[in-house]
Amino acid sequence: MPYLSEGERLDYIMEGLHIIQSKDVFAFSIDAVLLARFTYIPITKGNIIDLCSGNGIIPLVLSTRSCVPITGIELQPRLADMARRSAQYNNLDHKLRFIEGDVRRKNIIENIGQADLVTCNPPYFATSGENEWNDNPYFTNARHERNGTLTDMVEAASRLVKQKGKVSMVLRPERLSELMEVYRKYRLEPKRLKCIYPKKGKDSNIVLLEGIKDGKPGLTCLPPLTVYTDDGKYTEEFRKYYEGR
Amino acid sequence: MPYLSEGERLDYIMEGLHIIQSKDVFAFSIDAVLLARFTYIPITKGNIIDLCSGNGIIPLVLSTRSCVPITGIELQPRLADMARRSAQYNNLDHKLRFIEGDVRRKNIIENIGQADLVTCNPPYFATSGENEWNDNPYFTNARHERNGTLTDMVEAASRLVKQKGKVSMVLRPERLSELMEVYRKYRLEPKRLKCIYPKKGKDSNIVLLEGIKDGKPGLTCLPPLTVYTDDGKYTEEFRKYYEGR
Repeated sequence: MPYLSEGERLDYIMEGLHIIQSKDVFAFSIDAVLLARFTYIPITKGNIIDLCSGNGIIPLVLSTRSCVPITGIELQPRLADMARRSAQYNNLDHKLRFIEGDVRRKNIIENIGQADLVTCNPPYFATSGENEWNDNPYFTNARHERNGTLTDMVEAASRLVKQKGKVSMVLRPERLSELMEVYRKYRLEPKRLKCIYPKKGKDSNIVLLEGIKDGKPGLTCLPPLTVYTDDGKYTEEFRKYYEGR
Repeated sequence: MPYLSEGERLDYIMEGLHIIQSKDVFAFSIDAVLLARFTYIPITKGNIIDLCSGNGIIPLVLSTRSCVPITGIELQPRLADMARRSAQYNNLDHKLRFIEGDVRRKNIIENIGQADLVTCNPPYFATSGENEWNDNPYFTNARHERNGTLTDMVEAASRLVKQKGKVSMVLRPERLSELMEVYRKYRLEPKRLKCIYPKKGKDSNIVLLEGIKDGKPGLTCLPPLTVYTDDGKYTEEFRKYYEGR
């Protein structure tokens, strides 16, 4: 198939959408889809920027909810290339573009402007010793903060979002208090929080947080979402949320 | 009945515990009981301080979980007096003491020392214009920040807790990001968060947050708790939690 490079495969996401992945490089997790479902989104006017875009999963899912142009920014050329080919395969290249770039560089804003919504699935784990990093550099970049800390990403999101625009991120609950503090430091007022639970009775393993640039204080804790039933199947509420029903 | 003053009544809490209340002055809400169930507690060694103690509901419930002495601090003499009489009625005056005092005064620590656990059900609403205050001064003091802001309470809790001791508070979710930020500002690292939901599918209306003085970063979002069934009865999980089963 002409769209695929060696070692890559085409995976089905939902609603007729497909995505190019590679087990050696990057495969999306449900976190990204949950973020794309959770976030506020401009429907007909405005634009969207996705930071740390990986193979483009968030822009792809967001495109099913909106007509506005979406720009994904990804540091690693190999991933940006996969994302571009996925956009082409899905006939979405008129709506989606993927830029290779480092969101920490202040001049990135001159190239892509500001958005009504900035999304980000940032590296989850705080930077630690090299020896804790995964041997695979693609995984390391996606999971660890080698190419930018959480603070870097929030600062970039704040710079790239318009006044009263929204910023949505997904993270592990371990770092939620840090995320909220950094949001506020960069003038993103936390407005909506949703905790995702793997099973009933277990601690949360994913949190989703949306803030408004220079918004008024006042957080809403949305209803929780449980992913698996006790016997390990997806719950009905998870299926509905995931598929945007 | 000798324990009661005019307009007061004796209400049953649980496990043989009773509390003196008055609809004109103060009656506890489930928030306080949830906090007393949620929090870590020293069982056999150490001591506990409860700030903004009201009619003593939190110390009373905590006393069912622990042998250690508990000191409640309450600004309003009328409420401290009710709390003292409740302790006597329940034969708990050897374990519970209630002090009239303003936790914002720095010398309070000289009188009562530091504790292994500090609990607080602070005034919920940020200070606003006088006209929004309730006509009843008892309600106003309990609900609004007229006698101390959230920051004052967190600062006091931090001062009154030992190194590596714990501070647990209950609040509305609207102010959760502020609470987390203020916790961290006063060296209380948020460690455990629990969101309480009035009904399935509704937004949370109560959050419980526990921090450790100079603790390592890393928050756990505990399983959610839903209070009412769709037909307005207490859920089984709420009954169990409330009663400490």
